[in-house]
Amino acid sequence: MTDDVQRFRLSYGDCDALGIAYFAIYYPWMERTYSSWLHGHGLRSAELAGELGAGTVGVHSEATYLAPVHVFDELTCAPVRERIGTTSYSVGFEFTRDGELVTYGRMTFACRTPEGAKTPIPQRLRELLETLRAATGS
Amino acid sequence: MTDDVQRFRLSYGDCDALGIAYFAIYYPWMERTYSSWLHGHGLRSAELAGELGAGTVGVHSEATYLAPVHVFDELTCAPVRERIGTTSYSVGFEFTRDGELVTYGRMTFACRTPEGAKTPIPQRLRELLETLRAATGS
Amino acid sequence: MTDDVQRFRLSYGDCDALGIAYFAIYYPWMERTYSSWLHGHGLRSAELAGELGAGTVGVHSEATYLAPVHVFDELTCAPVRERIGTTSYSVGFEFTRDGELVTYGRMTFACRTPEGAKTPIPQRLRELLETLRAATGS
Amino acid sequence: MTDDVQRFRLSYGDCDALGIAYFAIYYPWMERTYSSWLHGHGLRSAELAGELGAGTVGVHSEATYLAPVHVFDELTCAPVRERIGTTSYSVGFEFTRDGELVTYGRMTFACRTPEGAKTPIPQRLRELLETLRAATGS
Repeated sequence: MTDDVQRFRLSYGDCDALGIAYFAIYYPWMERTYSSWLHGHGLRSAELAGELGAGTVGVHSEATYLAPVHVFDELTCAPVRERIGTTSYSVGFEFTRDGELVTYGRMTFACRTPEGAKTPIPQRLRELLETLRAATGS
Repeated sequence: MTDDVQRFRLSYGDCDALGIAYFAIYYPWMERTYSSWLHGHGLRSAELAGELGAGTVGVHSEATYLAPVHVFDELTCAPVRERIGTTSYSVGFEFTRDGELVTYGRMTFACRTPEGAKTPIPQRLRELLETLRAATGS
Repeated sequence: MTDDVQRFRLSYGDCDALGIAYFAIYYPWMERTYSSWLHGHGLRSAELAGELGAGTVGVHSEATYLAPVHVFDELTCAPVRERIGTTSYSVGFEFTRDGELVTYGRMTFACRTPEGAKTPIPQRLRELLETLRAATGS
Repeated sequence: MTDDVQRFRLSYGDCDALGIAYFAIYYPWMERTYSSWLHGHGLRSAELAGELGAGTVGVHSEATYLAPVHVFDELTCAPVRERIGTTSYSVGFEFTRDGELVTYGRMTFACRTPEGAKTPIPQRLRELLETLRAATGS
């Protein structure tokens, strides 16, 4: 199983009473994609503070719905590069179905010392973030 | 049970391995708050097309995390007024703990005819949206 | 908010593409009901090991579906007394709609020392379990 | 993607505050495994009534937890053969980690006419159920 991209087929539990994917299902898949990607490159997001001297806290998440998605559709979620600032960064998530972008997600994290103060993105994490490809449309 | 505001106590299943509320849990609560509020005022979001001649599709959702929330914290989610445009609108969601705003959410909907074309917000829905109070900070 | 019984209205996210409650939604409500009930009586299930010298691990869960439940139905989940053994116990959960039992759940826990060996149910927990009322049908 | 077996890596959202897999996460994976398996063999569980003249309703679900599972563990969920009766049947689900059975699940379905009366398992569905391999331990 490659850890960089997640593939899944929508099931009944992912879809609401209208028969289309429930708007909230994308968020756990973003986190799964993000955490697996970090993990596949040797980092555990919950242990960044211990490993790298700075932890990250989620400060924002969002999703833009571009096309309806139905039960049994097969989706792919890939992490893409977004803004990488001094003490915070975003990661984008492209959900595609047969190559068509159906949903675009984003998670934004801020780096904090164990005491809670802002701190620069650890160098190892920054270098990893910079390896992400740009979003398709950008 | 009042339908305008949702109250819930965070449980173990709402919290991640770090012991704080998982970032994705707020989204189903936004939808529950929104749907219950509409329902309490005589509208069912899944049946708007049939009742009012225009349906709504979710086009965006987001959440901003302001303070960490822990297992057994008791939260309140209240819908608040956001932008009400011609053919689309947003609803905000204030998650508070003992009066402190801990997370702010937003869902944005667009109105569509059964054929999928943009159409104005139905008058009855617009009037209901206008009854929402403004966000605390605005 | 009383901690012994949970009340909630089914939302779109709780229902599958068939328009009835998804079979899996009852499980988090069982845990929420159980944890809130313990918490309301001064016990935190995740901290039992530290507080009472023995922790509990979930060994089984189940649900029996008696009647279909639909979006916007209002349900109540109440914990009820089940088997209380020497080193393990079960808790039942009655999900009712207007007094009608629609789903019956059960969680079974085993008590373990910090080293993982079987150990008797701590007395304080046993006494609390014994205060639960019997299931309606029993 | 084969549709008979599901593979997934546990993410933070799957784990509770104790750092082990939350007991409820297995249920959606059982349904995903079951629905994908049916779908991969040409059947859609939500459309069985129309396709085969008899629909199925879930009447029971359960899970037995055999070993704790942690974040980033990679699990496989495979459907296995269980009781196939006249008008109802069960499907088992083996969750394994590196070949070790960690959780065993079961879903039980009853066949109903559109009017809600008991009816035999449709022949095509019965034949498909009979192709499932037996559980490892049986």
